[in-house]
Amino acid sequence: MKVVIIGGVAAGLKSAAKIRRSKPQAQITVIEKGKLISYGACGIPYYVGGDIDDVTQLMTTASGTVRNADYFKNIKDIDVLTETMATNIDRVTKTVTIKDLKTDNESQLLYDKLVIATGATPIKPPLPGIDLANIYQMWHPDDAKAVRRGLETGKFKNAVIIGAGLVGMEMAEALTNWGIKVTVVEMKDQVLSFLDAEMAASVAQYATGQGVNILTEEKVIQFNGDGVVSEVVTDKRSVLADLVILSIGVKPNVELARQAGLDIGVTGAISVNEYLETSDPDIYAGGDCVENTNLVSGKKVFAPMGSTANKHGRVIGENICGGRVKFRGVLNTAVVKFIDFNIGKVGLTEREAKLLGYEYIAATISGHDRPHYMPEVKSLSLKLVVDAKNRRVLGAQAFGEGDITKRIDVIATALTLGGTIDDLFDIDLSYAPPYNGPIDNVAVAANVVMNKIVGQMVGISSFEAKKRMDEGNAIFLDVRAPEELKKIRLAHSDLKNIPLGQLRERVDEIDKDSEVVAVCKIGLRGYEASVILKGQGFNDVKVLEGGITAWPFQRDAD
Amino acid sequence: MKVVIIGGVAAGLKSAAKIRRSKPQAQITVIEKGKLISYGACGIPYYVGGDIDDVTQLMTTASGTVRNADYFKNIKDIDVLTETMATNIDRVTKTVTIKDLKTDNESQLLYDKLVIATGATPIKPPLPGIDLANIYQMWHPDDAKAVRRGLETGKFKNAVIIGAGLVGMEMAEALTNWGIKVTVVEMKDQVLSFLDAEMAASVAQYATGQGVNILTEEKVIQFNGDGVVSEVVTDKRSVLADLVILSIGVKPNVELARQAGLDIGVTGAISVNEYLETSDPDIYAGGDCVENTNLVSGKKVFAPMGSTANKHGRVIGENICGGRVKFRGVLNTAVVKFIDFNIGKVGLTEREAKLLGYEYIAATISGHDRPHYMPEVKSLSLKLVVDAKNRRVLGAQAFGEGDITKRIDVIATALTLGGTIDDLFDIDLSYAPPYNGPIDNVAVAANVVMNKIVGQMVGISSFEAKKRMDEGNAIFLDVRAPEELKKIRLAHSDLKNIPLGQLRERVDEIDKDSEVVAVCKIGLRGYEASVILKGQGFNDVKVLEGGITAWPFQRDAD
Repeated sequence: MKVVIIGGVAAGLKSAAKIRRSKPQAQITVIEKGKLISYGACGIPYYVGGDIDDVTQLMTTASGTVRNADYFKNIKDIDVLTETMATNIDRVTKTVTIKDLKTDNESQLLYDKLVIATGATPIKPPLPGIDLANIYQMWHPDDAKAVRRGLETGKFKNAVIIGAGLVGMEMAEALTNWGIKVTVVEMKDQVLSFLDAEMAASVAQYATGQGVNILTEEKVIQFNGDGVVSEVVTDKRSVLADLVILSIGVKPNVELARQAGLDIGVTGAISVNEYLETSDPDIYAGGDCVENTNLVSGKKVFAPMGSTANKHGRVIGENICGGRVKFRGVLNTAVVKFIDFNIGKVGLTEREAKLLGYEYIAATISGHDRPHYMPEVKSLSLKLVVDAKNRRVLGAQAFGEGDITKRIDVIATALTLGGTIDDLFDIDLSYAPPYNGPIDNVAVAANVVMNKIVGQMVGISSFEAKKRMDEGNAIFLDVRAPEELKKIRLAHSDLKNIPLGQLRERVDEIDKDSEVVAVCKIGLRGYEASVILKGQGFNDVKVLEGGITAWPFQRDAD
Repeated sequence: MKVVIIGGVAAGLKSAAKIRRSKPQAQITVIEKGKLISYGACGIPYYVGGDIDDVTQLMTTASGTVRNADYFKNIKDIDVLTETMATNIDRVTKTVTIKDLKTDNESQLLYDKLVIATGATPIKPPLPGIDLANIYQMWHPDDAKAVRRGLETGKFKNAVIIGAGLVGMEMAEALTNWGIKVTVVEMKDQVLSFLDAEMAASVAQYATGQGVNILTEEKVIQFNGDGVVSEVVTDKRSVLADLVILSIGVKPNVELARQAGLDIGVTGAISVNEYLETSDPDIYAGGDCVENTNLVSGKKVFAPMGSTANKHGRVIGENICGGRVKFRGVLNTAVVKFIDFNIGKVGLTEREAKLLGYEYIAATISGHDRPHYMPEVKSLSLKLVVDAKNRRVLGAQAFGEGDITKRIDVIATALTLGGTIDDLFDIDLSYAPPYNGPIDNVAVAANVVMNKIVGQMVGISSFEAKKRMDEGNAIFLDVRAPEELKKIRLAHSDLKNIPLGQLRERVDEIDKDSEVVAVCKIGLRGYEASVILKGQGFNDVKVLEGGITAWPFQRDAD
């Protein structure tokens, strides 16, 4: 059997390795346009930021061997042709035309099975000045090296990052590590567009607190400079810049597939079925160039991720060797570290649930990631979105200094298996003080959704609460101790403070007929207050969900 | 409605709070034998070890309020009677007799619904000398304070911990922090009896490396000393001891329930149905005094855990207020931190699966918990036990310096929802270099089980491999680079070393008809080697699962 694989990074090489393990006699050829194969592009921000000292570490195995063509030949008996481009696929004769980029010589390869793993390319907007020096895309190790060298030599003082997605935020951390001024310009009205607005606002609030200048709803229109970039011009201002990072996203490389007459999906990526076959059953496609199905919504999505590409590679390898393995789909899971903040999302956001017509309940909680008495304790906020009809979890989002990836991964597992909030509550999650509390944040969030469903708790999101605050009719009742308010509180001229322990005796100080928004640090005492007030005949008490920990608007302190 | 709750720690107070939120008019009385209520006993080792400075932190809410009777009265309108013991339950008249331990006055409380949450008591073996001073059980904050004071003043130099369970290992860490000599004596043939033998052996190997003296299969027979303990005598030796920690387990407090004629289960704990009703439908029971059902095996188990007790409290509260909520069961999840090692288990071990008659496949992998190029990277070993008939996951165990609780919790979620290894592989787990690699350890382990099922990989556990090594017939082939062997290798006089990259050309150096055990650091290169050798006509190549990272026997270095 002859297998030709176009693309020598994650999906391509993974499928090659899988095929070799099942078929010792198969002839496997991998075609790669670039000089490098199988490099860990996801590690680039950590090299630029100084966590990693040697960029070649991104190209080695865990045991230190460089993953080059020799390695694949020696260890796996796979032929890898680098600096070689596939220029045409002839599906009738089952021939791929390839061109050696060093010599420009063309030749042809016959295949029984073909794998297209051509990946994606960062988008480079055709703006005036885009080709000035020191405008980089964080895609290739050579770019990373140039930026790192500039940082080490003190060449860069003012960086502008264009695009506040995953890579944009990772690069904002990397550059902040070097103590230079960092501005992030984002066209949309929030950072990290995969989050709901109020979650993104908390991330932006944190970023601003860390000295990063965040400009949203702002469009870059040109770059100025004399050979070298010196200024980024947006539709609202000019920003000084001696370094520009473009991180506005990637587009799938589908030209070869399109020319070959293969189906392209609604998202613009290559269309594949659940076996990762293209519209030609002898041609598979995987990795960043194909579209996926979101497991929760069933909708097609373009969600390029190294983790997905590796799964694709295994499924393609199995199926080429006669298997019939399905790739089930993705959850659009995304996590990103930004300085000391961890941020994540899995499944559907509230915005997506609304758009898709779900009747849903959302709830946000804040809390500690382990018992408050442990010295390593950190906070996190977690939002759950749940189908109100059948209690199935639709998605989750989280941010904070606490351990959020554990919670995101637990919910990813529940989403994969169709779990409900009742399931989330029931899971016998591991418990020991160094790791988490006896009631995990996931169970607390599930519990709050249950309470909301039966009307035992009426919650209000930070965005809704802010509207109420601006309208001026609701009473904002902070039930924390006065010392806690001195440290941090909602910026509100008319904030009422009655500590929870005094609420029963001081209940007459509040008008029973008013709308009351109960506020505390994380939402728990606010909930206790709402129970007390309802017991005293109050009719309209809402709990500020996630408390002041998840309040993305102005906060005051003495 | 009158509700009486016997027991003022996790399950009791949680059910009280839940009832109050649903029934503002209910009369709720909690009876607690001790002076303290609702304290975080799980935090005691961290107070003793010095992580926590003030033991009262174990008794406060996250916002710093002491959870005493006043707190429960003020905030939740719940009456808590401390230093009060329930002495009798009359189910006909629905009356609990209580005794004030300060005055010895007896009185009676009527109930509509009764909750028994009497907890468990540490086992104190009736050995000669057991009442000598400085023999402690880590149960009450007063004991913790006495031990901490002794450590701070340098009074203790030689500690003996009896019982190598969760608390025993946590205390071994705590005492090691103070630089004193620690010996752990365990009657069974391994530490942490909830683990399979080879996993436990790796933990013991690590503990020994950290200077802790581990004595297994050794029974304490008496304590010597003149008023104060000075020596622990086992069936094999005498050990110097000025401090003894008893941590041989707990027994459920069931006397009151037994006297009242309620059913006691096969495990010796109170028997409850899925609604947590005892054999009397007006009496609920929860927390450490009841028995649970293991969700995987369906068997009754005694598995006292603070996390389970809190879940029980909520279920009982809901059901007393007219709900019909089920408590589904437990997974016997256990995690423990021991110095820089994280150790965990969920579901069934291989030993349990065998005992219960499952036809199972087990596989152990080692690996990094995030990409090898990240500075925070750590190793972990993960063992999966899978039902060979239907591919359902039965359980998992893990150890190492890496982040194991995330993986244990993901598998706990899968177990709760009946997931298979295919599900584990499919989960779109979060991926970013600060947190994990593109193929998570859980997916790697699932993949190895799949490969074992179809015979693509033949694995051998460390225990089986050691037997082969001692018999002397198999060739142990280490395929790492010579420099790696210099640092650490199996202690074996006849270890053959051919680096993986040279294996194809040097294959003639190995006898094709021999049994070959392929060895590497984590098992991956061993697997590659087995694929190469099988391709070259070898018939009996086994991969050492988990590599040298999971080798619990002697390891050599230059």
